[in-house]
Formats: sequence, structure tokens, C-alpha cells
Amino acid sequence: MDTPELSNLRIHSDRMLAAFEELARIGATADGGVNRPTFSEAHLAARRWFREQIENAGLEFRTDGAGNHSAFLAQNGAGDEAATLLLGSHLDSVPNGGRFDGALGLIAAFEVLRTIQDAELPLKLNLESIDFTDEEGTLVGLLGSAALAGRLSPEVLQNPRGGRQALLEGMKRAGLSEESMLSAARPQESLAGYLELHIEQGKRLESTGIKIGIVNAIVGIWSYRLSFLGRADHAGTTTMSDRLDASLGASEFTLAARDTVLHDFRDCVVNIGNMEFSPGAFNIVPARVDVSLEFRSADEEKFQRLDSLLLGHAHEAANRFGLELKVDSLGKHSPSLMDQRVRDAFASACDDLGFDYLSLSSGAGHDGQSFDGLCPVGMIFVPSKDGASHSPREFTEWQDCVNGTNVLLQTVLKLAT
Amino acid sequence: MDTPELSNLRIHSDRMLAAFEELARIGATADGGVNRPTFSEAHLAARRWFREQIENAGLEFRTDGAGNHSAFLAQNGAGDEAATLLLGSHLDSVPNGGRFDGALGLIAAFEVLRTIQDAELPLKLNLESIDFTDEEGTLVGLLGSAALAGRLSPEVLQNPRGGRQALLEGMKRAGLSEESMLSAARPQESLAGYLELHIEQGKRLESTGIKIGIVNAIVGIWSYRLSFLGRADHAGTTTMSDRLDASLGASEFTLAARDTVLHDFRDCVVNIGNMEFSPGAFNIVPARVDVSLEFRSADEEKFQRLDSLLLGHAHEAANRFGLELKVDSLGKHSPSLMDQRVRDAFASACDDLGFDYLSLSSGAGHDGQSFDGLCPVGMIFVPSKDGASHSPREFTEWQDCVNGTNVLLQTVLKLAT
Repeated sequence: MDTPELSNLRIHSDRMLAAFEELARIGATADGGVNRPTFSEAHLAARRWFREQIENAGLEFRTDGAGNHSAFLAQNGAGDEAATLLLGSHLDSVPNGGRFDGALGLIAAFEVLRTIQDAELPLKLNLESIDFTDEEGTLVGLLGSAALAGRLSPEVLQNPRGGRQALLEGMKRAGLSEESMLSAARPQESLAGYLELHIEQGKRLESTGIKIGIVNAIVGIWSYRLSFLGRADHAGTTTMSDRLDASLGASEFTLAARDTVLHDFRDCVVNIGNMEFSPGAFNIVPARVDVSLEFRSADEEKFQRLDSLLLGHAHEAANRFGLELKVDSLGKHSPSLMDQRVRDAFASACDDLGFDYLSLSSGAGHDGQSFDGLCPVGMIFVPSKDGASHSPREFTEWQDCVNGTNVLLQTVLKLAT
Repeated sequence: MDTPELSNLRIHSDRMLAAFEELARIGATADGGVNRPTFSEAHLAARRWFREQIENAGLEFRTDGAGNHSAFLAQNGAGDEAATLLLGSHLDSVPNGGRFDGALGLIAAFEVLRTIQDAELPLKLNLESIDFTDEEGTLVGLLGSAALAGRLSPEVLQNPRGGRQALLEGMKRAGLSEESMLSAARPQESLAGYLELHIEQGKRLESTGIKIGIVNAIVGIWSYRLSFLGRADHAGTTTMSDRLDASLGASEFTLAARDTVLHDFRDCVVNIGNMEFSPGAFNIVPARVDVSLEFRSADEEKFQRLDSLLLGHAHEAANRFGLELKVDSLGKHSPSLMDQRVRDAFASACDDLGFDYLSLSSGAGHDGQSFDGLCPVGMIFVPSKDGASHSPREFTEWQDCVNGTNVLLQTVLKLAT
């Protein structure tokens, strides 16, 4: 399908580096990171900068009711009804985050469009490099992609994780509204697919020395609040054997959960991210400990087995110390499988370019999940030094960024010609 | 020493019950408890009520710079230089506490004075039933007794556990000041001893069916903040084996501390009353867990051994999971031994009255600790139903209260004739 000319096409490393470095100065922090939470002044400034880049490059600027910002390249080989292949990521960051998460993927997508524009290639698909609103979840999480996919519900906007007031104020600063957010859905037939390049946020590439990861699935996340319930007693006058100490159940469960995943579910992870003690005084036996539990897997069947084992451990730990257990499910988000044809195209591009690749899952969430079942989705990873993520320590060798972007370019060419 | 007349003397059960019930109505809560935190309106009302009771009974009312309120009975058999035997407890309560803790001891002390006053006995000691300020620690803890004993330091008033602002406002409401507090010390030679009747706040009397406990020691309390230090990582992308998860050290330590005390230090207690997780998010591996640890013993040598074992467990738990450990000692309060002559007098009084008694330690702190080494101190306990304490569920059979007060009366007669 691809011609010798197409397979020789490469992105412009220096032009892309200049754009990456300019962007990294917007919201830069003293420790080398960036601070661009959704709809902060720095985030809106980054979006204005992106719009200028698009217009200076002679590409079409588009935005929508969810505030997503895009560079659009209508293919002269495409008919009126041509669908659009989205290439994207995001310009928002976690508070005091790094320069690579999101930004690299958007700069790579934009550079792919510019390279194809320069080459004046006749493709079958429109191309769009898109900056999705609030991927990181300052307000909602995967907000712009969910809105575009038609999967944003009014209920989510009523009770956003960042707080309703912050959402309303942020939308106002960005010139958006709940109505505009809910009207940003695109027709499914317009979506040819979604591709994203991202830093790995883990150490698997670094530890193997392989430079490209082809994502097979984005893990799902199941989360619970487990409340171990005992009895508050005077910590001086109550004998050890008379206590119903909620801390014991929570502690026993924490160790058991880790052992189970470490030994029997090696491709899953579990986290006890928080415990809240009540009443929480030095001299009172803890009556209640609320445990924040989440676990992740790329495999729905493993979720079922792990869920059953972990809840079993929690009940056993409660029973052992005479406690009651209250189980609140806070969400069961299924894994998103990446499209096989897209994965094959990534692999073929790696082969053409002479790059080894690793097939791996993404332990973090990404906008691609919003398109699960709607259109083909694929992601590639480039290495993160020390696995750093959501940290000013994020770093990826520039050559690795260039290689990944060339894989993205060649994959687009394979899918769109 | 005692005559047949003295050993037949008994307190007035009905008069004492009427006073107890009147007092329980001040600051009463809907669930049968009382809410009289130090210098609250209810607490100050209880003190006004006590003053009226004193004056109506024809006893001398005294107060001091620490706000301690007393009924004073100058013995006509005592010389000008006679020392004073203090009988006391406190009218303040924990927030939403019970009707017995403190109140019963003060009502008993007051009834003992009234009985001796009515009998017009020539004793060798002045008697004083005293309501100590802030035993429970709303502001400082053992505040009035420490001030009277000359053991209150200006530093403690600068950084009180209830907060500086609350202390200043409370003292103002009570017409007191830092200067008055620090000037409330009495000369050591004026102190003939301190006796207190209190509810047990535990189940040892109830479980044995014995009605009087003679306290041999008030336990000491050692407390620490143990900080387990790991590393914050993305809970989705960091493999289990790559984590430095502070929750694991804290959990392992919690279980080990309990096992050690339960099996090898059966007359001691340990409490992990709180843990604080940082950053404390579902999706971030805990970088730090601060553990609130306290343990109690009536034996200084056991403190040393237990301290060494517990800190050893903490270091082992940290090492096992690759964590660092930060150890902050928050205080080492030694046990207070009760005076042997006073314990013998209590025992002799029980024998005279035909009551069995149990020799036991107090797991809770009491004002008697303030007089450690200054004058003889002794305490007796009466049973607490279900061991309830600091709770509206506090309850002691009235006959047990009467019996304990008669033991207190007979002990005073033995010590003061």
C-alpha cells in the first residue's frame, strides 16, 4: 500500500524540538517541570500558543464546545464524506507536573500533520491533531475526549472530582458552559480512529533498552472504600484482649492485598492509597479505619478473580479481630483493548524503521478509553527515565521522542493511504 | 488509733445521692451523659453550684489562682501549723462524657467532709475537698493539680494541647490569667496527702465481682510519632516490586506491636491511635505514613524493655519494605507509685467494713500524679459497668459508690486521728 517515497518520509526533529521547548516555558516551574492545571492561566496560555502555531503553519484551527483545540488537515485525496483520524494528547498537567506528559504527544501529533502537509500527500482520511480538555482530572478527567465521544453525562458535571465550583469557574474562564460541553459530541461515522504517543510512565522500556512500546490495552481500575469497624475504647484502661481495634483489620488487609498481587497477579497492581482513622487520637482505640483501595488489570477475567480474593482477605482480616466490614464500591472501569489493526500498523512501522518494540499495557488512564468501541484506538509509548511521571523529573531522550514520532507518522500513512 | 465510735461512722447515702443527681443535671446531654469541658458555660455553672453547696453546708469556700474550688474544714484538734489532707477529683468532663468520671470523686470527698463536720471530730489534719481545674485536658490536662503542686511551667501554657487561643479565652471566662495560674503553688509542708475515689474505667472489678480497687500505681505513658518514609509513585504504572510503599511498614509494625504486648507484656497496653497518609490519594503510592504510638506500663523497667522491642519492630518493618524510619519521642511520663501507708489504710478500712478489695494499677492518668514525691498519694476505684469511660454509658451502682465513699471516710479517719 505504501510507496517507497512514503516510507522514507521523516518528521523534522529540529522544528519539533523548538516547538516542544517553547511550550515547556509556558507555566514552567523552577524545578524544570510545568504547572498547567486545566483552565489555569498557564493552561489557557498554552492553548493560545498552540492556536498561533496552527495558524502560523497554515493549518486550519478548530475548537469545540468542550474547549478541545485542534489543527485540522483536510486531505485533498479524501471525498466530502471522509472520516477523520484523530492524533492527540493534552496540554493540561497535574499540579507541578512534568514537561513530557501530554505535551510530547500533542507536539508529535502536530509535527506529523505538518510533515504530511509539507509533503502534499493525497490521503484517504482527514487528519486532526487534538488537544483534549482536562485529561489529567483537575476537574473531571478525560473530559474533552468524553464530550467529543458523546459519553459525557450531565450528572458527571454536577459532581466533578475537582468540585463543582472549580468546574464552573474554570469553564467561565475558558468561555465554555455545561451546555456547550454536552453539545460537543461528534457523529461516530466521522471518527476514523484515535492514535496517541505518550511517555511510558513506567520502567519497562527503560529496563529492557527497547525504545518503542505498543500498547495492547489500557488497564481498567476498580476502586473501593473498605471500612473496618471496631469500638472506641480508652487506650489506657482497656486490656489488649478486650479491644476491637479497627487498625488491626486494616493493617492485616494491607499486607495480604500486596502479597496476593505481588505473587499471584504479577501483571496487576493494587494500592492502599489512604487510611482514615476515627476518632484518630493517641489515647483512644481506633473505632473505624476507612481504607482507600484500588486495583488495576488489563484483563476483565483477572479483575473478577482478584476482586473476589481481595474482598475475601478484607473479610478474613475483619473476622480475625472481631471487626465488622463495610464495603463501598466506588467504580469498576473496564480495561480498554487497543485495536488489532492499529497495533499491526504500529508494529509494521517499527519494522520498517528498524526499531524493536515491546507490547505492553498502560497502567495509567488515557483519552483513548473514551473511544472504546466507537472507533479503532492505538497508543505507543516512548521511554520515561526512571519511570518518572506526574513529576518535574519526567525526562525522555530527544532521539526517543523523534523515533516515536516517526513511528506515529508512518502508522498514519499506513492507515490513511 | 481509732475508737469504736469512729469506726462506726458512715456517710449519708441519700444526701450524697441528691447532690450527685443535682450535679448530673448541669451540662446534661440527651443520652444521659454530661458535656462540661473546662471553662465551658456548663463547667463554670457546675463550679458555681459546688460553691453554693459548700456555703450552704457551712463549710469554708476557697479558690486559688488556678481556679481550683475547695470546701475547707479546719480541724479544731489541729494546731496552727496543721497540714491539709486533700480529697479531690474534678468537675470538668471530656466532650460528651459521662456523669461519674470526676463528679463522683468530688461528691464523695465533699460528703466525707460533711460527715466529719457533722460528727464534730477532733482530727490532726485540716481537710479539703478540692475540684481541680482541667483534669481531662481540654486545655492542658492535670492543670489545676500541677499548678497547686508548683509543677506548672510557663512553657506548657505557651503551647497547650487544646491550643493557645482556647486557653486564653477559657482563663478569661473564669477570671484567671497565666500569672494567677503560675502563682497557685502551695508550700510542700502544707500538703499532708492526696486521696481520690474514682470509677475504674476498666473491667477488672466488674469481672471479678469485687467492689473496691486499691490503686498501686498510675501507669506511665510513653508516646512517639513514627514516620515510615517511602516514595510517591503512580499507582497504575509502578510495578509492585518497584514500590517503596510506606503503608506496608506502618501495617507490619501495627500488627507486631500488638502481638508483642498481647503475648509478652500482659499488664501493659499499646495503641496505634492514628495514621496519616501522604499524599493520601487513591492513585498514588503512599510516600509517608505518620503513626501515632503510645504505650503504658506501671513499671519503669518494663518501659525500657518494651520501648526497645517496639522501636526494634518499627526498624525491622521499615527495612523489610525498603523504607526509612523517623522516630520522634513525644514524651516519657513515668509511672506514679501510690504511697504504701495510704494503701495500707485503704486496705484496713476495707477490712473493717467487710469489703474485699483488689490491688490494681490505673491505666488512665489522674491528678494524683501531680503530687508524686511531694506528699503521700492514694486512690481507690469503684466498678464501672462494662468498663465504660469518657462515654455517656458510664454507670456505677449507687451502693458501690456509697461503699467506696465509706472506705474513703474511714481511711481519712485513720490518717487524720
